[in-house]
Amino acid sequence: MQATGIVVEYNPFHNGHAFHLEKTKAITKAEIVIAVMSGQFLQRGEPALLPKWMRAKMALLAGVDIVVELPYQFATQKADTFAFGAVSLLGAMGCESICFGSESGEIEPFLTTLQFLEENKEEYDNQIRDYLDQGFNYPSALSHAFLSLHPNDAVVDLSKPNNILGFQYVKAVKELKLSMTAHTVARTSTDYHDQDFSSDTIASATSIRRALFSEDGTLEKVLPYIPETTALVLQDYLEHYQHFQQWENYWPFLKYRLIQATAGELSNIYEVEEGLENRVMRAALEASSFQEFMTKIKTKRYTWTRLQRMCVHILTNTTKKEMEARMDKASYIRLLGMNEKGRTYLNNWKKNASLPLVSKLSALDFDDVALDVRASRIYSLGATEQMAQNLLELEYKQPPIYIKEQKEIEALK
Amino acid sequence: MQATGIVVEYNPFHNGHAFHLEKTKAITKAEIVIAVMSGQFLQRGEPALLPKWMRAKMALLAGVDIVVELPYQFATQKADTFAFGAVSLLGAMGCESICFGSESGEIEPFLTTLQFLEENKEEYDNQIRDYLDQGFNYPSALSHAFLSLHPNDAVVDLSKPNNILGFQYVKAVKELKLSMTAHTVARTSTDYHDQDFSSDTIASATSIRRALFSEDGTLEKVLPYIPETTALVLQDYLEHYQHFQQWENYWPFLKYRLIQATAGELSNIYEVEEGLENRVMRAALEASSFQEFMTKIKTKRYTWTRLQRMCVHILTNTTKKEMEARMDKASYIRLLGMNEKGRTYLNNWKKNASLPLVSKLSALDFDDVALDVRASRIYSLGATEQMAQNLLELEYKQPPIYIKEQKEIEALK
Repeated sequence: MQATGIVVEYNPFHNGHAFHLEKTKAITKAEIVIAVMSGQFLQRGEPALLPKWMRAKMALLAGVDIVVELPYQFATQKADTFAFGAVSLLGAMGCESICFGSESGEIEPFLTTLQFLEENKEEYDNQIRDYLDQGFNYPSALSHAFLSLHPNDAVVDLSKPNNILGFQYVKAVKELKLSMTAHTVARTSTDYHDQDFSSDTIASATSIRRALFSEDGTLEKVLPYIPETTALVLQDYLEHYQHFQQWENYWPFLKYRLIQATAGELSNIYEVEEGLENRVMRAALEASSFQEFMTKIKTKRYTWTRLQRMCVHILTNTTKKEMEARMDKASYIRLLGMNEKGRTYLNNWKKNASLPLVSKLSALDFDDVALDVRASRIYSLGATEQMAQNLLELEYKQPPIYIKEQKEIEALK
Repeated sequence: MQATGIVVEYNPFHNGHAFHLEKTKAITKAEIVIAVMSGQFLQRGEPALLPKWMRAKMALLAGVDIVVELPYQFATQKADTFAFGAVSLLGAMGCESICFGSESGEIEPFLTTLQFLEENKEEYDNQIRDYLDQGFNYPSALSHAFLSLHPNDAVVDLSKPNNILGFQYVKAVKELKLSMTAHTVARTSTDYHDQDFSSDTIASATSIRRALFSEDGTLEKVLPYIPETTALVLQDYLEHYQHFQQWENYWPFLKYRLIQATAGELSNIYEVEEGLENRVMRAALEASSFQEFMTKIKTKRYTWTRLQRMCVHILTNTTKKEMEARMDKASYIRLLGMNEKGRTYLNNWKKNASLPLVSKLSALDFDDVALDVRASRIYSLGATEQMAQNLLELEYKQPPIYIKEQKEIEALK
């Protein structure tokens, strides 16, 4: 069976994702779609609305065949490391292609860009360093460095954030020497960062989350923008766990930790650089919400996203040493869920698998999954106290979600 | 002016304390009573019902002249270190006597006991070690070792917990070579550990706390057992901060920390000995309340109190290194409050003071008070979220409480 890979967060799965999924199947003609999905904490340094298990279920109900977890050390990272980890997993899963969203929907410019930057590598790297030295934040430095090379129209515009991830996927495929074809689907009109609803059926995940957390936020309000299957999972989650997760639910813990830790301990945490430990300790004493805290620590030097990711690492006590030891390659594949077709694929694939497939936590050397386990445990603490215990246990008791396609979906309704 | 010293926790100040205070004045004929009081965390390894500032106010309103804080490194310790720290502060404050509560109210047996144990020191120490090796907890080992020496009736019975602190005060006076006379007042009938009300006016602090935290707990219920001044302070605190503090308010933070920390980090914490780090990490995952957690980690080897103190140190991230560097002597005196007479005494005393008197946090090298400051910051997080910020700021903004005796007390009513 031919498999294609996609890289997702599904926070939550919405109509735009359904569109991407449908087009992916059409373009690649693959029989199997494998999604690598971030776990409890996401690339922008935020806790997911709801746990990976429920998000995996959304994906499966919407037609993804296999969902595996992007390990913490890749999921909570800037684009290059994030893409590297995701693509390496898709490679290990035997995907013959990868299909991502982009502005234009044309793959050629991505390949041209890759070649262009390889040819100008030295100059590009020098320029990046220069801009960083001038105090630009990392994405701005990348963007300025790119423009300083005077790229022509044949390349994708890497000063646009939406093109960066796609470029990194293509780059990772090459770096990892994978025989994987890259495809891209034109994104639907909505911008990733859009905060309001501007279409009747398509809205960004950001605007959906914003609506869910607004004062008059109900599921009702977002129904036009999500498939019925997502609505069912969200509804079920709310009935059991009372509220979706957001940073403010973890603020008491982050504040406690910042008050409790020594500067020395904090400086060992991944992404705590250049005396940021003193800045965050001071701000923690003064701030009474995560929002207020972030506003206090924000500088031109670092993006909001970069600082949020650092906060996730402080919250989970993830050190530079722990991350660096795990970033060079994925060492396991954690199966979150599959449908019947996915199971057949896995049974075949397992015979020649290059990485161990983890279905139950006890199956793997604990140290390898330590970061994912800790992240999951701490994520659970953001739920109401009693619910936290349920979530905590889920991490051990939950076997991979198994959906028998249509029959199961109908039963849910 | 002649000063006498008392060692207190006032959690909260009740009629038994008032009795002890009155008798202390009568027996010692001192013009000034100086109380050394535990800060936010107490000797039994618990957060205080309400902050040290409010407890100092209770003491002053009831007739104590000066209240100073027993630093964290002494306050959260077993009897000998607790007493050593307290007595060393009273010595530094110029107290000519110390007056403590005991079963009999006779001081002679304490002095005889001290001499008896000095004469049998080697045998006593050997016996203690033996009993510890046999798996007895520390207080039981002390008690058995004492009985094994076949003490006669002239000594106090050190197998009775209530006599141990008094003995340790007398011992500390001698060890510190202080010219301080020891006095003792017979305790009122109520046993320290009594959980129920058995008299019309005298109840243990334990039973008062229990009543305050019971389901139908109101201030009303404890009014017969506390002076009107205590009632006023408790009432005022409740109006501002909504609830009294207890371990369960800190349980989410302790659980988070135990889930987040590595075994290596925990083994550096004071009182985390002999693999207890693994035991507490496991129990944290399973327990959904502090009470349940404690029940899970309790063994014959350690007393409940000993384990609670360890939990305080984990909560406050206090390491063996930090404690051991500060336990050999007090290096400052933190003034929590005084009345007019107390102020006059301090003005005189300051001229020859052997330790710096800290009235404002900024006045002292930060590192010396680091443990008290961290304890106070973390203590504040147990209040409702908005109130926590008030409490946090109190630690910096609060000047010593100053009570102009009767006039002030009348104004409060």
